[in-house]
Amino acid sequence: MTKKEAISDRDNALFEAGIKLGALYHQFIGTPVSTETLELLERTIERSVALQPGVASVEVIINSEKVRLAANQFKYCELSGAMLDVKVVVVYGQAEVHVRLKYEAELEYPLMRVENVSEVTP
Amino acid sequence: MTKKEAISDRDNALFEAGIKLGALYHQFIGTPVSTETLELLERTIERSVALQPGVASVEVIINSEKVRLAANQFKYCELSGAMLDVKVVVVYGQAEVHVRLKYEAELEYPLMRVENVSEVTP
Amino acid sequence: MTKKEAISDRDNALFEAGIKLGALYHQFIGTPVSTETLELLERTIERSVALQPGVASVEVIINSEKVRLAANQFKYCELSGAMLDVKVVVVYGQAEVHVRLKYEAELEYPLMRVENVSEVTP
Amino acid sequence: MTKKEAISDRDNALFEAGIKLGALYHQFIGTPVSTETLELLERTIERSVALQPGVASVEVIINSEKVRLAANQFKYCELSGAMLDVKVVVVYGQAEVHVRLKYEAELEYPLMRVENVSEVTP
Repeated sequence: MTKKEAISDRDNALFEAGIKLGALYHQFIGTPVSTETLELLERTIERSVALQPGVASVEVIINSEKVRLAANQFKYCELSGAMLDVKVVVVYGQAEVHVRLKYEAELEYPLMRVENVSEVTP
Repeated sequence: MTKKEAISDRDNALFEAGIKLGALYHQFIGTPVSTETLELLERTIERSVALQPGVASVEVIINSEKVRLAANQFKYCELSGAMLDVKVVVVYGQAEVHVRLKYEAELEYPLMRVENVSEVTP
Repeated sequence: MTKKEAISDRDNALFEAGIKLGALYHQFIGTPVSTETLELLERTIERSVALQPGVASVEVIINSEKVRLAANQFKYCELSGAMLDVKVVVVYGQAEVHVRLKYEAELEYPLMRVENVSEVTP
Repeated sequence: MTKKEAISDRDNALFEAGIKLGALYHQFIGTPVSTETLELLERTIERSVALQPGVASVEVIINSEKVRLAANQFKYCELSGAMLDVKVVVVYGQAEVHVRLKYEAELEYPLMRVENVSEVTP
């Protein structure tokens, strides 16, 4: 049996959190990056994503060791999902969700997942 | 008071649906398009997005009138959010969510929203 | 000594050819692709790029073996530079240039290069 | 009659300059930006592009007035070609080229053009 339900703050918070990670990934992947520019790029991604409504915080870490290893003879590489660890907190109404994009070595995949959901009850 | 809760199929379905729309938007926006290539691009976006796990269906409509109006002297324009109407259905475990990306003329904004959530109860 | 010169058709043709390859690369890299959707994506890239003024022809080959090898458990991967072989011919005034984007295994790099330049002399 | 010619430093410099502008455009268009983050984004684009071989200088100006006007109720907008003024200098062997991406109001188009080519003669 299928039960159709009203859409809650929690639903919207999770949907918005997914949008932010999906957008961020496809916006910034491919950007030339080096160990010298990595911090600047981290701050730029954080502040760009944080402009959007509902985004309570963004933390971006680009793995400098992976950048160094991937760097070509010109000492830079393209930003890839394997280098990223991104945490985003989205608030929608009474709901707060924490999501993360992090490369999983076993899966060989930049996994996006929900880490925590909380709801403020009055 | 804040109540922390377990993450449900419904939560994950909404999160995944958001990822798909956010990714699709930033992947394909900017692609050169004309009234001649519009259908091919619609099918390509649909089939690309549908490759991903959990995606039950994708329907992409690019507004041909808007493409015609936006076209330059060379009869093409860049795909923009204003031209898109995208419906994605994501299934995760027992949950099914229907989401949509559609330009809202009043908001002057390509709005992404949750249209429906249903849960199969055994 | 530095000699400043007028900008020729040949100059513009080469510049435009570079723009096309650079744009194409960053537009389509990251698109989900499988051995099933590969041909559709090839045609879409070709026809999108060919809309632009000065583009006389575009030929896109996505290496199906590399797509198959890169595919995850869900049988798709993200389009990467290593999978692409793209030939573009640009004509500007009296000049015609043939450029190519092709992965070079030795360099581990998707190299873009000028393959041929010809000028029609009246 | 068609005359086929050897590929010169000048040819390669123009081709590379085109690649840089085409890539930059499709990499960064769509990034959320506000009058607060505009300078950070300018520096990030400059430093990312400057990592690439042959790039002697990059200057990026994002028009703050256009960002302000395009901003939604949340005080940000997506970076678009109309907001950009980008100058790139590429050196290849004995050739130096200056190229620019700048919105042309009359054409309603972010035009990319060659501004100057010079060759060092020994």
